[in-house]
Amino acid sequence: MVEQTFQPAPKLGLCDLNQNIIDAEYAIRGAIPTRAEELEFQLSTTTDGDLPFNNVVYASIGNPQQLDQKPLTFTRQVISILQYPELIKSKDVLIANGLYKKDAFDRACKLLTQIGKSVGAYTCTQGVYGIRETVANSIFRRDGFPADPNDIFLTDGASKAATYLLSILCKDKSTGILVPIPQYPLYTASITMYNATMLPYYLDESSNWSTNADEIEQIVVDSIAKGIKPRVIVVINPGNPTGAVLSFDTIAKIFKVAAKYGIVVIADEVYQNNIYYEEVQFYSMKKVLRTLQRDETGYENVQLASLHSTSKGVFGECGQRGGYMEIVGFTDEVRQVITKLASISICSVVTGQALVDLMVDPPKEGDDSYQLDRTERLTIHNNMKERGFLLYEIFSKLEGINCQKPQGAMYLFPTLLLPKKALEEAKKLNLLPDEFYCLRLLEATGICTVPGSGFGQVDGTWHVRTTFLAPGTKWIKDWETFHKEFYDQYRD
Amino acid sequence: MVEQTFQPAPKLGLCDLNQNIIDAEYAIRGAIPTRAEELEFQLSTTTDGDLPFNNVVYASIGNPQQLDQKPLTFTRQVISILQYPELIKSKDVLIANGLYKKDAFDRACKLLTQIGKSVGAYTCTQGVYGIRETVANSIFRRDGFPADPNDIFLTDGASKAATYLLSILCKDKSTGILVPIPQYPLYTASITMYNATMLPYYLDESSNWSTNADEIEQIVVDSIAKGIKPRVIVVINPGNPTGAVLSFDTIAKIFKVAAKYGIVVIADEVYQNNIYYEEVQFYSMKKVLRTLQRDETGYENVQLASLHSTSKGVFGECGQRGGYMEIVGFTDEVRQVITKLASISICSVVTGQALVDLMVDPPKEGDDSYQLDRTERLTIHNNMKERGFLLYEIFSKLEGINCQKPQGAMYLFPTLLLPKKALEEAKKLNLLPDEFYCLRLLEATGICTVPGSGFGQVDGTWHVRTTFLAPGTKWIKDWETFHKEFYDQYRD
Repeated sequence: MVEQTFQPAPKLGLCDLNQNIIDAEYAIRGAIPTRAEELEFQLSTTTDGDLPFNNVVYASIGNPQQLDQKPLTFTRQVISILQYPELIKSKDVLIANGLYKKDAFDRACKLLTQIGKSVGAYTCTQGVYGIRETVANSIFRRDGFPADPNDIFLTDGASKAATYLLSILCKDKSTGILVPIPQYPLYTASITMYNATMLPYYLDESSNWSTNADEIEQIVVDSIAKGIKPRVIVVINPGNPTGAVLSFDTIAKIFKVAAKYGIVVIADEVYQNNIYYEEVQFYSMKKVLRTLQRDETGYENVQLASLHSTSKGVFGECGQRGGYMEIVGFTDEVRQVITKLASISICSVVTGQALVDLMVDPPKEGDDSYQLDRTERLTIHNNMKERGFLLYEIFSKLEGINCQKPQGAMYLFPTLLLPKKALEEAKKLNLLPDEFYCLRLLEATGICTVPGSGFGQVDGTWHVRTTFLAPGTKWIKDWETFHKEFYDQYRD
Repeated sequence: MVEQTFQPAPKLGLCDLNQNIIDAEYAIRGAIPTRAEELEFQLSTTTDGDLPFNNVVYASIGNPQQLDQKPLTFTRQVISILQYPELIKSKDVLIANGLYKKDAFDRACKLLTQIGKSVGAYTCTQGVYGIRETVANSIFRRDGFPADPNDIFLTDGASKAATYLLSILCKDKSTGILVPIPQYPLYTASITMYNATMLPYYLDESSNWSTNADEIEQIVVDSIAKGIKPRVIVVINPGNPTGAVLSFDTIAKIFKVAAKYGIVVIADEVYQNNIYYEEVQFYSMKKVLRTLQRDETGYENVQLASLHSTSKGVFGECGQRGGYMEIVGFTDEVRQVITKLASISICSVVTGQALVDLMVDPPKEGDDSYQLDRTERLTIHNNMKERGFLLYEIFSKLEGINCQKPQGAMYLFPTLLLPKKALEEAKKLNLLPDEFYCLRLLEATGICTVPGSGFGQVDGTWHVRTTFLAPGTKWIKDWETFHKEFYDQYRD
């Protein structure tokens, strides 16, 4: 051992780090899910008798394929060919053996041509041009208004797009970002990290989590008076965690505020295909904007970024990190900054780019894969609808839970009317009341949820967010049993 | 057309945005590559006669599969099975038809078990545990010192890991980040974006771009005197863009400075398998650190993060975004911040995680795929070595170019000794001299490179970075011809 010739310095502590990142909170991977992972590890390493359940049910995160949702066959056939194009040489054998359909090869060949050489090569910053053309065409079909491939950025899921935009638009503490409450915590975490000021606008739980544009305008006016410039409004439609779907009229009113005050609209529309009732219709913000621009004056300067993802809908390809954003109305100089920032991470994962193509352009009637693909999509969609409704019905009957009917997305966000004794018990344990409920639920049943405090809620109210993705009904029964016992234990 | 009832606000301008992001520069996707994309588009839409070349050669970016490098067969077989596990049911047919080897199915099944259900599901934040165990084992084989799977984070390439770390470690302008000059511009871009202070340490071109730890210590001492706390040193080994490979002794000296002043070491080791000469040996910084910790005192508190990627080496799977970082020596509270930040983007792309497994654990002697895999790896490696050496030889003979012999990585970074007339012409065109040279090269030959100014260089010197990945020798001849004509035109 050589004698040291210098005095070693200590390790870094928290005080040496970027305080904004220390302050950022992201409950989806917070204390409750972390505890769930510990319990799952315990289950995998010890005998059954130690815990009152045999498996952890992750109702904490919209992760369908973790919960047995099958990937779409056509989609995976195409991606497997992109990964191993040697298969194309033997396509006749593979088709004859029933392993592949012909149109999977056709699509893979088209995509390989567009991609250039290999999914292992970087693409240009915005992503493969041909795929962006396909996306633009699908937006035209959705909205009835044209889209430009040059306005499309293929991104690693929608999260990457949101963080690109917010990191650019958060100038300093005087930048105000309007965020719905409750919201997906990526937004509050980003605002904290990028050191801007959050301007919460509360959704109205009593009218199915509706959005009130007059209230938003009042917040804008008040914050300007306080020296905070409202620069961005985040709109999540269908809502996460609320499941609410915005009407055409509500969206139009939001755009009026945006146009009047020069506020960029970030439209998180990743659940646009998760709509469960015929009386509910999804309107893209782009469609509403183009309609307003056609029919009225004053909307020429509106700047909109719309985000979509391959992680949700009937795709559920979370682990593949595909997504896109469409940006509309930004000046060239601002667009160049967005492109420059995206270029620093070079490009999004190329198979994720291909998945975007497959999401927006599924097999058509007459294609070999059409029937199977359609059946698979319908089955997944109907399963989600049924599970969501079943869970909603159970919640509706339970003492101490108030739940809005889910219109879209894949979550329920019911109010917990917790008895005073439960609040006291939580306080003793130094937990928020909704954390206490979620932790008790997890420890008793293995069901992992996220407390409402992770999404934001009206002061003094308590909620829980659960997905309705987990298969079967046993977990729902378990929850029901737990909840009744919880209330029996703590009822005032 | 409805009359507008409000005064519309103007669009955002640059003055409304985050100034740090506006200031960040990333030459790899800067003006020259952007011009190259325009020329490529022009080639694809007009007749041949318009430009003096038929295709653009992207020597600007380490993107091997764009330049005809074939992906490794075993690797792609495994990933295709992960994407379409239905293939497993028919593995006998597929093996009999020569489409797959048996060990590809074995590996895919092992990975699917470790992943859980599907590559379409999010994994835990740090990535699949079983894959991290495989990485830890490979580090043990490489270094002779154990590694802990809990210290491994699977990341979207190495860039993501670098930005995680820098965003956390850049507290404010008083944070100094030591960066080699020349360097890969991700680092300077990140320091600008996260608003810290860059502390450049210059590599010595005259001794094959060597690193001088005494000079680094002097910079540390000087910057402390000026009120800047040196918090991080970035070490790129093998060097990008220099190709220099650090000796054990040099690395040990860097660690001494790190230990003495409490400086975190970020080791960008993505080119660790791109070493071309027997007399040159790669030492991982982790191995050197563990050796110092074993043999001497004073190194207990050193904090190291080592980055690796599936984009380089013989893999070249850039578009698949696989990578890992190993973090060593950080306190638990700092580790938790790193984990929290990573959790906000949920997880890295799952097929990229699987690629990391395949990179660090290739087929072994006796496995069905061993021979082919070994041949493919050797071929790619030898091709790179030959091309690098050929380009180096040509440069060595040319007037006005000084080039160091490449030891590692996939780049040459020769000095351009530009004649006065060329400097004057550049000035007239409002270009830096190296930009002028690269632009002229591009317009004359279609060869896209990046000017040295994008990487940093000693004031008054001019360089060009080129990869040596492009196949064939025609482009090298074209460059030679261009260069001679350029000198004939501008010779003093």
